[in-house]
Amino acid sequence: MFNFDSVELSKDRKKLKILDQTLLPWQESFVYLSDIDEIIDAIVRLKVRGAPAIGIAAAYGICVSILERYPVGKKELSSVFEDYYKRLLESRPTAVNLKTALDRIRDTFNLSINFRSSTEEIVDDMMEVADSIKEEDIKMCLAIAENGLSLLKPGMSILTHCNAGHLAVSRYGTALGPIYLGQERGYNFKVYADETRPLLQGARLTAYELSCFGVDTTLQCDNMAASLMSSGKIDAVLVGCDRIAANGDVANKIGTLGVAIIAKHYGIPFYVLGPSTTYDPLTASGKDIQIEQREADEVTHMWYEKPMKYKGEVKIYNPAFDVTPSSLITAIITEKGINKLK
Amino acid sequence: MFNFDSVELSKDRKKLKILDQTLLPWQESFVYLSDIDEIIDAIVRLKVRGAPAIGIAAAYGICVSILERYPVGKKELSSVFEDYYKRLLESRPTAVNLKTALDRIRDTFNLSINFRSSTEEIVDDMMEVADSIKEEDIKMCLAIAENGLSLLKPGMSILTHCNAGHLAVSRYGTALGPIYLGQERGYNFKVYADETRPLLQGARLTAYELSCFGVDTTLQCDNMAASLMSSGKIDAVLVGCDRIAANGDVANKIGTLGVAIIAKHYGIPFYVLGPSTTYDPLTASGKDIQIEQREADEVTHMWYEKPMKYKGEVKIYNPAFDVTPSSLITAIITEKGINKLK
Repeated sequence: MFNFDSVELSKDRKKLKILDQTLLPWQESFVYLSDIDEIIDAIVRLKVRGAPAIGIAAAYGICVSILERYPVGKKELSSVFEDYYKRLLESRPTAVNLKTALDRIRDTFNLSINFRSSTEEIVDDMMEVADSIKEEDIKMCLAIAENGLSLLKPGMSILTHCNAGHLAVSRYGTALGPIYLGQERGYNFKVYADETRPLLQGARLTAYELSCFGVDTTLQCDNMAASLMSSGKIDAVLVGCDRIAANGDVANKIGTLGVAIIAKHYGIPFYVLGPSTTYDPLTASGKDIQIEQREADEVTHMWYEKPMKYKGEVKIYNPAFDVTPSSLITAIITEKGINKLK
Repeated sequence: MFNFDSVELSKDRKKLKILDQTLLPWQESFVYLSDIDEIIDAIVRLKVRGAPAIGIAAAYGICVSILERYPVGKKELSSVFEDYYKRLLESRPTAVNLKTALDRIRDTFNLSINFRSSTEEIVDDMMEVADSIKEEDIKMCLAIAENGLSLLKPGMSILTHCNAGHLAVSRYGTALGPIYLGQERGYNFKVYADETRPLLQGARLTAYELSCFGVDTTLQCDNMAASLMSSGKIDAVLVGCDRIAANGDVANKIGTLGVAIIAKHYGIPFYVLGPSTTYDPLTASGKDIQIEQREADEVTHMWYEKPMKYKGEVKIYNPAFDVTPSSLITAIITEKGINKLK
């Protein structure tokens, strides 16, 4: 079903191949990179996005860029590796997957450099680790997908918010995992994607990837979700998550909370899907989660072209996330299993 | 407080002066019209919008355009009047206020033409009726505003959806009436305006007019309303209405239902405001209200420029309105009084 991954190696394994997500939805363009500056630029400028995808891009990226530069001698190789490692690490400072992936590659590098004689052999060892990182991510997503699918029935109509799919994670994604797995197994889901203002990840990414892979997809504005649910068109809601507090409160893309309240009003199950690592035992409840307030321009300008409001003293409220209390969540689904909350 | 009306006469009472709403929010531009073709064009192309505003524009419009043309002799005058009446009536076929206003002008015309000798005198009589139509609309809005304000306290934070304000109706508007009246009386309301996708009436019109008249205004995406209410920032919700069924169910701009469900979840009063004529005794309940499905382009294109989704078989759900059941409504407020529903 999947005829491309958002991050993969070229067939000759010498280039990093990514879908340039900054050009979506206007253009579907794959870029092939092996120069370290181009790879870092792709991460910084969000050509590749989503924490797991960034980790994989960095892991493959350090391999292909060293191969391209081809330093000779252990001293030069070590110095190039450390330089690339450091620059990749700094490209997106908050993404935990990026550091985890790069550190695994570095451990292998530090070991291999003592035993292997050529740059090529050392990169081969690193490449093997990069493959593993991606394979593990795919397996984890598949496990989330299996667990999620066990709660759904063929023919269901599913609403989703924002993008936690193929483009951000590996292959199946998280929130969209059960949908893709169901698609492979003939479940014939109908999926309703919220456009997800202000940055329209639903319209630009979710609707794009679902339809790419043949899922029956409908796009609507965020404020139409209640109309859909009231008319009996939605059987379940699937969303991803950015952080899960110890008590089960979930921080996710702004708008998730509203969808959860409306789903509860109509008795529609509301499922949160993500890796078990999203649980943060140090955060007691949603109240302890700091919510990022973002730039006003995202709301007042359409893609920074035309202003959507005219003069006057208008303030802008633009939180990136909201917190959905566990009381509104039917179950949290990870690769380890299903945590039923009600 | 109000330094302009969306529809008024020029100072010399020879031109219709309207704020060109098609240029909002990019430009605040008033146009002065007396030619019948220009006046009809302004109505057809939504330079003036909102049922009451259209009625007033047509009433003044037929007066100034006859004055401009200055037909001499009762035969020519009658034929010009009937031509203009008919063309204005056809400019927006579904707006009831348009027909009501034009019919009142015609009744006066048919009477005056028997008693008055000059075109000027006859137009003066018509102009008096047009003034009355506007004055009555202002009075009605003021009564709605007084009734609504009696439910609010100084310093409250109010959320509103779409635009039912100064630009659509006369002077105070309907849903925004209590806010403007409170503003005049030092209530210091804070108002949060939903941007109201897909056509962004909240961002383009509500935020504009509120800030124009000095109200403390914040703009947010529709999906941020739940975040605002959960953090205790909202004390009441005020919305307008397009139709009220006999049982109190209310059809209003898409997104209203979701706001009502979220307000109920947090125990925040949800008020619907409109003229008593919005009650439709022939519609038993919300189920009997047909909801208009609008063009996909409104959702997929930002002002018809850049597409927001990329290829693939993506359907679009784009209802213009939704129905809020009376069980979610705290009270319906008209010029005649307050109908408490819970």
